[in-house]
Amino acid sequence: MNSWVRYSEDSDFSIYNIPFGIFSYNSSSPRIASMIGDQVIDLKAVAETGIFDKLNIDNSVWESNYLNAFIALGKEITNSVRLILQKELCNEDSILKTTDVFIPVQEVRLHMPVKVGDYTDFYSSIEHATNLGKLFRDPENALLPNWKHLPVGYHGRASSIVVSGTNIYRPKGQQKPADSDPIYGPCKLLDFELEMAYIIGKNSNLGDPISTKDADNYIFGKVLFNDWSARDIQKWEYVPLGPFLGKNFASSISPWVVTLEALEPFKVDGPVQEPEVLPYLQYDGTSNIDINLQVLIQPEGQEENIVSESNFKYMYWNMRQQLAHHTVNGCNVKVGDMMASGTISGKDEKSYGSMLEISQGGKKTLTLKDGTERKFINDNDYVILRGYAQKEGIRVGFGEVKTKVLAAK
Amino acid sequence: MNSWVRYSEDSDFSIYNIPFGIFSYNSSSPRIASMIGDQVIDLKAVAETGIFDKLNIDNSVWESNYLNAFIALGKEITNSVRLILQKELCNEDSILKTTDVFIPVQEVRLHMPVKVGDYTDFYSSIEHATNLGKLFRDPENALLPNWKHLPVGYHGRASSIVVSGTNIYRPKGQQKPADSDPIYGPCKLLDFELEMAYIIGKNSNLGDPISTKDADNYIFGKVLFNDWSARDIQKWEYVPLGPFLGKNFASSISPWVVTLEALEPFKVDGPVQEPEVLPYLQYDGTSNIDINLQVLIQPEGQEENIVSESNFKYMYWNMRQQLAHHTVNGCNVKVGDMMASGTISGKDEKSYGSMLEISQGGKKTLTLKDGTERKFINDNDYVILRGYAQKEGIRVGFGEVKTKVLAAK
Repeated sequence: MNSWVRYSEDSDFSIYNIPFGIFSYNSSSPRIASMIGDQVIDLKAVAETGIFDKLNIDNSVWESNYLNAFIALGKEITNSVRLILQKELCNEDSILKTTDVFIPVQEVRLHMPVKVGDYTDFYSSIEHATNLGKLFRDPENALLPNWKHLPVGYHGRASSIVVSGTNIYRPKGQQKPADSDPIYGPCKLLDFELEMAYIIGKNSNLGDPISTKDADNYIFGKVLFNDWSARDIQKWEYVPLGPFLGKNFASSISPWVVTLEALEPFKVDGPVQEPEVLPYLQYDGTSNIDINLQVLIQPEGQEENIVSESNFKYMYWNMRQQLAHHTVNGCNVKVGDMMASGTISGKDEKSYGSMLEISQGGKKTLTLKDGTERKFINDNDYVILRGYAQKEGIRVGFGEVKTKVLAAK
Repeated sequence: MNSWVRYSEDSDFSIYNIPFGIFSYNSSSPRIASMIGDQVIDLKAVAETGIFDKLNIDNSVWESNYLNAFIALGKEITNSVRLILQKELCNEDSILKTTDVFIPVQEVRLHMPVKVGDYTDFYSSIEHATNLGKLFRDPENALLPNWKHLPVGYHGRASSIVVSGTNIYRPKGQQKPADSDPIYGPCKLLDFELEMAYIIGKNSNLGDPISTKDADNYIFGKVLFNDWSARDIQKWEYVPLGPFLGKNFASSISPWVVTLEALEPFKVDGPVQEPEVLPYLQYDGTSNIDINLQVLIQPEGQEENIVSESNFKYMYWNMRQQLAHHTVNGCNVKVGDMMASGTISGKDEKSYGSMLEISQGGKKTLTLKDGTERKFINDNDYVILRGYAQKEGIRVGFGEVKTKVLAAK
């Protein structure tokens, strides 16, 4: 495909991508957009040209504050919208060439793409689970007995998921120093977690499991996900019911939802699962995706520093298995629900997806380009996640999620 | 107060209650109601009489499918609605006497009262936490070190919260027999948990904690809450990140939201907290509530059997402390969020709030009136929670949450 819209070769938003998001411009209300190169495509304006007419979409959907109503139209419609856009953006005679549907991305504000109903976080990287098991529990038995039998997951907080560009405050809370009673104060061990999340595209009914075979029909698309973690708060609170205040002060996501269909060309085989999993977790076909991932720390006014390079293909448990497991007990899912991967670490220490792992629990120091040192995240640091898939000259990427950490209030 | 509406002395829905809920009637859309005795009060019809006119409420709010928009009007408005209703229901010359605002409750369908955003479950009964610690972990150190320092809580699944009268299916999932690899099948140890939940009445901002002093302004009201639990699934999955599929297949709530203001007369002192809690968890005034609670099992076509009699006043951590803790790290709350108490057990074994505790982990058998035995819940059993506060002839109750367990699909 060749588009008449010009963009650089390394753009995440090539003609092969065509993601969906929510933008506002000047004083307009937020509404639905796509993106090519560095141009936001106003889909309300596109719809007015008539190119979607045969889809019989109620035009009010383009003026929604969130993608939920659009996603709920179903993949037949949303995929058609994407394919029509691709076709028109390649058609030299397209009506879009003569209309006012493009706005440079630097002139718009990008918003939360979806209203998140429920948010679940998995724990599906074997390297991350092993690293954490070694640090938190027993180096000899780092993986707990259930880990290879089921994709461990837990519920997180949906209300505090924010979009790239939203500053967060360093959380306060209880910590337990080794030699004293618990104390209250600002978190001292603030961490990121490099994750990706998928967004549910179709409601299921309470009582009805979703099979691994049917799972893709329920997955609309993906975003980058930074699962902020306050390690000292988490360590003291997390037994026996799991992480709570150590996580729920904020999670940050990238603004563009890249569809599952756009990622299809980048599918790869996952790791061999040994012992064999139960039948409801077995799947056919390639179900991992080769997505290059990066984490960068940028101290205020300074250069960016790459601190991790990982890949979504490392996941031990894939999205189909996660969704089949999540619903095997009849738990229902709804459009807009978000399912995060858990921290994506690779084997190599340069691919670890959290400072906890990079600093080996605070034992090792990272020196940044400006000469300052980090074991965890400082006030006024920006943390940036980036991700893209690339193959045979085709690039489909996520842009970034960039967040500044403000001092505790 | 004396109402011209007649109701029996032991009605949960006395003139002192005036709760809020959502009903539908014949083929009408769901809309907002209150309740007195066994009469549902159609608040759209009441509004049309003009008695709320001075409050300047947009009348479309009465036709909402959920209470959220009504609750979001703020306590000044919602409390005024309740007080005006009480006044009119006591006024012998009230216009309500001559209008068509009452419908017998047996003729209506009651719906989920709120659209739940985020759902959190606490673990705030010291008796329950001790009982479970003994059964699951170490009888000598049943309470974990953090338990008396903070109200332990975790995030649950909002999408699967259903209203009284909604049947649930026995969940399927992974279990780990002691002597074999994990297996997949219907839960064998299905349990209830006797809980209450409060509903958030006001949004807070990300980054802004809510103090114990200000907490009541954020609590709209309460419901009964049955936190269904699949003990075999839970036991295998819950390390290290907490309960997931063992809980998220369903939670059941009572349909009427009883306001915090209706419960005010029943406040009592809570237990002495020793060791002293950190300043952000300290509070002034009586903050527990004396609410009698019951759990009953009713096999299909058989009599009800009381299996537990507990009280909400047993809570070690009160709602103010729970909310202050939940937000101390800046986590935001939204109108419609639900915060459950955790299982409410008392000291006496007749007051244990789950079959896991009643049967001592499956060691002890309960014989019902029909001669059948229970260690956990059988297919086609109804589980019923009831609750009411009573003092000096005044009764304010919750009605019930009644749920039938269907065989696994």
